[in-house]
Amino acid sequence: MTRVPDEGLILVPGGTLITETPEEGRALAIAMVRNTVHTIQPELEALQAGRAQYATDAGELIAAVQTVSMEFQTIAAANHYWR
Amino acid sequence: MTRVPDEGLILVPGGTLITETPEEGRALAIAMVRNTVHTIQPELEALQAGRAQYATDAGELIAAVQTVSMEFQTIAAANHYWR
Amino acid sequence: MTRVPDEGLILVPGGTLITETPEEGRALAIAMVRNTVHTIQPELEALQAGRAQYATDAGELIAAVQTVSMEFQTIAAANHYWR
Amino acid sequence: MTRVPDEGLILVPGGTLITETPEEGRALAIAMVRNTVHTIQPELEALQAGRAQYATDAGELIAAVQTVSMEFQTIAAANHYWR
Amino acid sequence: MTRVPDEGLILVPGGTLITETPEEGRALAIAMVRNTVHTIQPELEALQAGRAQYATDAGELIAAVQTVSMEFQTIAAANHYWR
Amino acid sequence: MTRVPDEGLILVPGGTLITETPEEGRALAIAMVRNTVHTIQPELEALQAGRAQYATDAGELIAAVQTVSMEFQTIAAANHYWR
Repeated sequence: MTRVPDEGLILVPGGTLITETPEEGRALAIAMVRNTVHTIQPELEALQAGRAQYATDAGELIAAVQTVSMEFQTIAAANHYWR
Repeated sequence: MTRVPDEGLILVPGGTLITETPEEGRALAIAMVRNTVHTIQPELEALQAGRAQYATDAGELIAAVQTVSMEFQTIAAANHYWR
Repeated sequence: MTRVPDEGLILVPGGTLITETPEEGRALAIAMVRNTVHTIQPELEALQAGRAQYATDAGELIAAVQTVSMEFQTIAAANHYWR
Repeated sequence: MTRVPDEGLILVPGGTLITETPEEGRALAIAMVRNTVHTIQPELEALQAGRAQYATDAGELIAAVQTVSMEFQTIAAANHYWR
Repeated sequence: MTRVPDEGLILVPGGTLITETPEEGRALAIAMVRNTVHTIQPELEALQAGRAQYATDAGELIAAVQTVSMEFQTIAAANHYWR
Repeated sequence: MTRVPDEGLILVPGGTLITETPEEGRALAIAMVRNTVHTIQPELEALQAGRAQYATDAGELIAAVQTVSMEFQTIAAANHYWR
């Protein structure tokens, strides 16, 4: 078994929810989802098998995006919606 | 493998959550969902296969709309609900 | 293939989230969900097949209502909950 | 085919989100979910078949409660959480 | 058929969303989910069968926790997050 | 049957939603999800079987992260987003 590198296990990369732009906020949402997946399942081999599974399954791909949408709700509120 | 064109990978098209009307806000929600899908799965062939799958599966179609609803919650709040 | 009529593709019917009553707000939530479904899948034949599927599947019916509940959260907030 | 009686199709029973107590607010959430189900699927026979299905399926029962939880979030906010 | 006892059908046990501590708020969230399940399905035998099913199914167990998380969002807001 | 140790059953570990950093807030979200799972299913053997199941199932892994995202929405709001 190979373990995800340490930087892949940081739950809030950058240590803050504040970003300069919505684009960076969205990228942070994706990174938070990815690293939480890593924290729950840190075995690279299992992650790669799961990746092959959900990236070609429309239902699971949509569920992955929903998770990003939830994080983005939090990040957008933190940034007063970059108004 | 063909890759999604670069403009399909912009996470927040237009770079802002602020729109003039609810209709444009809803269209932005759809675009954000679509481009996040592209970012997670940038292979056109896989996307087209997934599209054929979820567009004829009522359950997955509903899940896709739920994702749009979540983004729209964020966008509507950003725009003070266009009151 | 028959395409959904144009009025079925308006994402926010009426062009505003503001309604006079909670009842109208709830009806708007249903209309927004329906028309977003139409926008993602504009082929009438596929929609009718999907309708037959989810209207008799308890799980998918519940998922459809969840989507309405999400839109209604947004619409209710927009209307200060009609207090 | 038998149709759900008219009172079962009122989307917001009582016409307001304001209730005197949390208990009544929760009951309203359940009624709103139920009547939205009726509006999407008004055939009594299909509803009774669906009821038999989800009431004995733990996953669908949980999904039904999630829908109630979402409505309750809205109703509780409308009532300033009955503080 | 045996029916759930009356106290298991109170939708908001204690009649208020206000609690002294986060721990009690979380316990209330669990109780609200449980009693809403009871209200939708009041037959003890069906509940016990469902319990055996979801308690050993990881996906349904996670869905049950999601429902608790939603109630807790409401309860935490009601209590100004016990700040 | 072996029971989860008592500290694994504390619903809000630390007794507060307030944390010093987003990283700690995210870790609290994971701990709250985990301990709520324990409270609903306190049998260690069933938990270990479920763990083997969802950690290799992409769909269930994503659902687990969604639950964390929901808790984090609450915790982030409690902390004024650590602005």
